[in-house]
Order: sequence, then C-alpha cells, then structure tokens
Amino acid sequence: MKPAKFIVIEGLEGAGKSTAIAAVLATLREHGIDNITHTREPGGTVLAEKMRALVKEEHAGEELQDMSELLLMYAARVQLVETVIKPALNAGAWVVGDRHDMSSQAYQGGGRQISTETMAALKSTILGGFKPDLTLYLDIDPRIGLERARGRGELDRIEKMDISFFERTRERYLELAAQDSSVITINAAQTIEQVSADIQAALNQWLEHA
Amino acid sequence: MKPAKFIVIEGLEGAGKSTAIAAVLATLREHGIDNITHTREPGGTVLAEKMRALVKEEHAGEELQDMSELLLMYAARVQLVETVIKPALNAGAWVVGDRHDMSSQAYQGGGRQISTETMAALKSTILGGFKPDLTLYLDIDPRIGLERARGRGELDRIEKMDISFFERTRERYLELAAQDSSVITINAAQTIEQVSADIQAALNQWLEHA
Repeated sequence: MKPAKFIVIEGLEGAGKSTAIAAVLATLREHGIDNITHTREPGGTVLAEKMRALVKEEHAGEELQDMSELLLMYAARVQLVETVIKPALNAGAWVVGDRHDMSSQAYQGGGRQISTETMAALKSTILGGFKPDLTLYLDIDPRIGLERARGRGELDRIEKMDISFFERTRERYLELAAQDSSVITINAAQTIEQVSADIQAALNQWLEHA
Repeated sequence: MKPAKFIVIEGLEGAGKSTAIAAVLATLREHGIDNITHTREPGGTVLAEKMRALVKEEHAGEELQDMSELLLMYAARVQLVETVIKPALNAGAWVVGDRHDMSSQAYQGGGRQISTETMAALKSTILGGFKPDLTLYLDIDPRIGLERARGRGELDRIEKMDISFFERTRERYLELAAQDSSVITINAAQTIEQVSADIQAALNQWLEHA
C-alpha cells in the first residue's frame, strides 16, 4: 500500500473543478485506492463553513477588509487541516481537496494584491511546511470560466469581482504552477472529456512515480 | 487641541474593565475631550461581532483550534482597526478600547501557549506598527477576578478554561507591561473607588505629558 496522499484541485470559477474531482476519484479507484476523504475550502467542517459564510456573503453597509478575508480563509484552513485532513492522512485515507492554500495565494495575493511578503509570512507562520503532495491546476481564461459559472446561477461576493481581479488571480496561479514541481497545469479550455482524459493521464503517471 | 489618541483597557475577567472605562471617559471629559469612540474586542463591527461569536460560542463536537481562534481574533481586529479605529482617529475622535492586541498576546500567547515567534510574526505582519498610545492594564489574581466574573452569570468558552490558563495569561500580561512604557499597570485588587482614583491619576499625568 502506498502511503496516503493529499491531492488538490485548483482553478478559477468555471474551470471545471467538480468534473476534475470526479476524474481524480475514478482514477484513484482504478488504482485500488478506495479510502478517500473529500474536502472543500474554505469550509469542510461545521466551524469552517461558518467562516466560509462570512467570506462569501454580502454584508450590507460594511466591507470585509482584504486582510480580514485572508485571515478568515486561514482560520478555516487551519480548522480543516487539523481536524480533518491530517487525521485522515494519518489514518491512511487519501484526501482529495477542492481548493487549498494555492487559492489564497492566487485570489488574495494575486487578485487582491496583498504583498508577496505578507502572503509568504502568513503561509509559513500558519501552515508551517504542510502542503499538498500533488495539485492539479485547471487553467482557464477567466472570461470563459466566468461565463460558465454565471450560467450556473447566482454569484457570491468574490465571484462578483470584475474581470481584472480574475486576470490577476490567473496570472498568479500560472506563476505559482511554474515554480512548483508538485503542481500540474491542465488546459481547462478543452472539452470535459479531454480535460478528464488529461487529468487521468497526469494522475496515472504521477501515481506510478509517487 | 491635542491630536486624538487610542487608549486601551486590558485585564483578566473580573478585573473591572467596565468601571475603568467609565473612569477613563470621565477623566477625558474633564480635560475637555468629548469626541470619543468606544470599541470592544473581539467585535465592534457587525462582521467582527460575527467573528466574536465563533470564538465565544461552544461548538458541539468540534474543537476550535488555537491557531484558528487567534486568526479569528486578528480578522476581527483588522476589521475594527480599519473600519472604526483608524477612521475615528483620523477624524479627530479619541478611541477608548475595551481590549486590543495585548489580549491576544496574553490569552493566546500566554494562556494557549502559542509560541512567541508565531505571535510576533503574526502581529507584525497583520498590524504593522499600529498600536495604542496608552494601555491601562488592570492587574488581578485570576482567582479573585474569576470569582467576580462568575458572580455575573454564565461563562463563555474561554472563561471556562481552568485556573492555570488564566495564571499563564496574567503572567504574560505582566511581562508585556514590564517591557512596554506605554502600558501602565493598575492594582485591580483594590476597591472600585481606589481603582478609579488610580486610573484618574495615571491618566491625568499621562495627558499632561502626552
């Protein structure tokens, strides 16, 4: 048995994360990996979901500060990592995450333009060395992704940001992916079938060498 | 006119912070300072009060992680500093705070024993150089303070910690007060009248030299 791993799916709104997660789960099962915990961020515990709500909701008359938003994301992340992800991994379960820290780096660091120094200091102080074993980043032009996402219904506070916010977010995603060998970039502008096939191929290869 | 200042009252449960705040407000008014904003932490804005509730409530079946607690405190603090305290000071209002960052240093750093390095890194990354002009720390033996506080009714999640938690918190308060010349320690084991008189005297002297 391979030791349990933490695999994360990242990407902009409408990049196809749900489809990607289904492809990841199917591929893991083909490799005989059935003990899988599925998480989403922000959220994934009762308390973390309450923090998620504070971040996602509109707040009439009071603007959530960028730094407060980031700290809520980290409060929720710590809660999830310590009460769900680490215990699952320690118990031998694989963890498949819908977003993790790369989202904060991209959205709050890139999109909201919180400085790289601040982002790095918080990440290292709060998470220490904890990180995913593998991240599949679904890359998509935000214009295409947002059009897909908007077709699904109402947008939350963050999804209502203007296009330049998402362009900065994508740019940071791409920079981070280029710097980190544990991140595989998938072209998410392709058909669902092709994206799933690419994920399956990338994951098969990674599992052989992991 | 003196430029507006940020004055904070700190201390354990039952130290007499409400009485102290009344004494501070009365003294400021005697000096002709009428434009005063009063804050409390954690909380003080609609969003920050929601964060406060997450910290104070009991959560059946899920334990709030120490680091998540600290990050919620900071998320609430940033929200209050940026939307209330700084705008008030900039508009010429004095700000009298019921708790501020020293509480996090004492409760989460001392009480919860989060490392000094972590506490210092978060404080400097999140708050930068922002700090109160004057802090009045009401020092009390936690056994006396908690007895007073318990007489007032139900205790929240933090107030239910055992005595050693509050002893470590007080110890950190005293260490911080000894290191920082902007903190004045008041003996809060005295009668209400004597505590108020000490606060008035300390504040009068500080206002003359501020």
